[in-house]
Amino acid sequence: MSTGEFGLIDRYFKKIPGFNAAVKLGIGDDCALLDIPEGYELALTTDTMVEGIHFLPGADPETLGHKILAVNLSDLASMGARPVSVMLALTLPTVYDSWLTAFAKGFFSLAECFQVDLIGGDTTRGPLTLTLQALGLIPKGKALKRSAAKAGDIICMTGSLGDAGLGLKIAQGLTIADSATSLQRFHTPMPRIAEGLAIRDHAHACIDISDGLVADLKHILKASGVGAHLEWERLPLSNAVKHYIDTTGDWQMPLVAGDDYELCFTIPEANLSALSIPYTAIGRIDQDQGVRIYKSATLQTLTQQGYEHFS
Amino acid sequence: MSTGEFGLIDRYFKKIPGFNAAVKLGIGDDCALLDIPEGYELALTTDTMVEGIHFLPGADPETLGHKILAVNLSDLASMGARPVSVMLALTLPTVYDSWLTAFAKGFFSLAECFQVDLIGGDTTRGPLTLTLQALGLIPKGKALKRSAAKAGDIICMTGSLGDAGLGLKIAQGLTIADSATSLQRFHTPMPRIAEGLAIRDHAHACIDISDGLVADLKHILKASGVGAHLEWERLPLSNAVKHYIDTTGDWQMPLVAGDDYELCFTIPEANLSALSIPYTAIGRIDQDQGVRIYKSATLQTLTQQGYEHFS
Repeated sequence: MSTGEFGLIDRYFKKIPGFNAAVKLGIGDDCALLDIPEGYELALTTDTMVEGIHFLPGADPETLGHKILAVNLSDLASMGARPVSVMLALTLPTVYDSWLTAFAKGFFSLAECFQVDLIGGDTTRGPLTLTLQALGLIPKGKALKRSAAKAGDIICMTGSLGDAGLGLKIAQGLTIADSATSLQRFHTPMPRIAEGLAIRDHAHACIDISDGLVADLKHILKASGVGAHLEWERLPLSNAVKHYIDTTGDWQMPLVAGDDYELCFTIPEANLSALSIPYTAIGRIDQDQGVRIYKSATLQTLTQQGYEHFS
Repeated sequence: MSTGEFGLIDRYFKKIPGFNAAVKLGIGDDCALLDIPEGYELALTTDTMVEGIHFLPGADPETLGHKILAVNLSDLASMGARPVSVMLALTLPTVYDSWLTAFAKGFFSLAECFQVDLIGGDTTRGPLTLTLQALGLIPKGKALKRSAAKAGDIICMTGSLGDAGLGLKIAQGLTIADSATSLQRFHTPMPRIAEGLAIRDHAHACIDISDGLVADLKHILKASGVGAHLEWERLPLSNAVKHYIDTTGDWQMPLVAGDDYELCFTIPEANLSALSIPYTAIGRIDQDQGVRIYKSATLQTLTQQGYEHFS
């Protein structure tokens, strides 16, 4: 890790909580050291958020501290991993005490929730950019891979769909009666760690919904060489999202909006009864390539797309 | 990892070479999976390079691909770790085929040198920023920590000092007769992996010289609660650096210039004969706090500082 910015690191980030015995050496050397318990393998992921692309200039730093951690932990959740440690690369145009204090508050609140240790990082000067790398543990061979879906599997998901998408629209100016919940879903998603652990021994494939249900489901289908059909009426929609659709006619929104960070997983029908968490069955894996969406028992064509950079 | 930018990832970065059996799943899922062999612990580090801060706008992308990997591997080297895998977070203002091709060439050439697998990453749009996270393996308990220096240890270093600093001055406009070597040391440093492995069982503390010899040595001293004296005449200087100092009188440059990425380590005198690599003894650890630099047997005062962001 960088040896610059020592005061900065010490002041805001060197509160080693030491949740995990695996962490043998945290912030303060050239590398952190981890001792992995026997019988486990590592899950590793990284995600970046850039000002002006992933969040608006002037975005609330406490929210950013939460979100950069949440989106990375969500990737661990989708493999069925238990989070252990993260490294934070923080690029800042300048140092504002109030900004860093709020950022650290959002970050460490969520880290404490999931007993995650910040074991290192790098702080540099430049346009506001946040990159996190997260490390989790999974019993060997138990990871939920995108490539493991089988024809006949039921497609399920946790939580509800489209709330974060509605939150984005509210952040962009849409007015609705009760905006707080949707905004919260958009700004401070909660990674589905417990759910990932609960389905790990029963489900086949899993992904977290970051770019939109259909876009993310397609990754499972492509990796597994299968197809899927979804029934629109089965989608778990909150009253706010239902009301939005009734008012606008925008029925595609929950299928294409990103940022929900719910888990979408495929599971043999016989294993459904073993699930200890709430879920909603929304469709089924089949042999025919692609995603077919039925609404009012009629095959639909999506005209909107999920989010993709550089597309 | 992000699920966006699929074509981009596939086209430039999804050449899974599979150097390491530990890598069970590379690019293409929410997380990469690693199976760590028994008896080893993990070394983890991350470093960021930002356009306009760490390199000039318009910098050669092949050089950047090399350097972002080199500076992270150098952190592994300084702990005595063997590199295994890296994740790359690449933020780009736009996609130029020629830029990415050259970047990937520099990156993968060095990755092949050290048998490092690229196992994941995230590509996002924004101001040019490169963040790498590197993972290496060390036999349990064998890591070279900054905190392990002992009074009486000899302070040694690999290679030569100040060449990268001279290279930076050349890049900034200084003219010298033979500029190629110094420029190369600045642009494409080689991480001292083999040297880190070779000293691991004999040395006490170690650090890589990224911010300047004195600045980096001070981290060892602070972490170990000791001090040091250095003899300027013992510093390993190339003819180009000697000539620069003779011409300018700038004797402090090799002590404060960064980017050399040599290893500075402390070692009991009795262990020196066991070292199988070239090295130079430049001073000794003692009990008195701080660094004392002697030149012509006279205690000197440094007026220049090592590099530090936000200072």
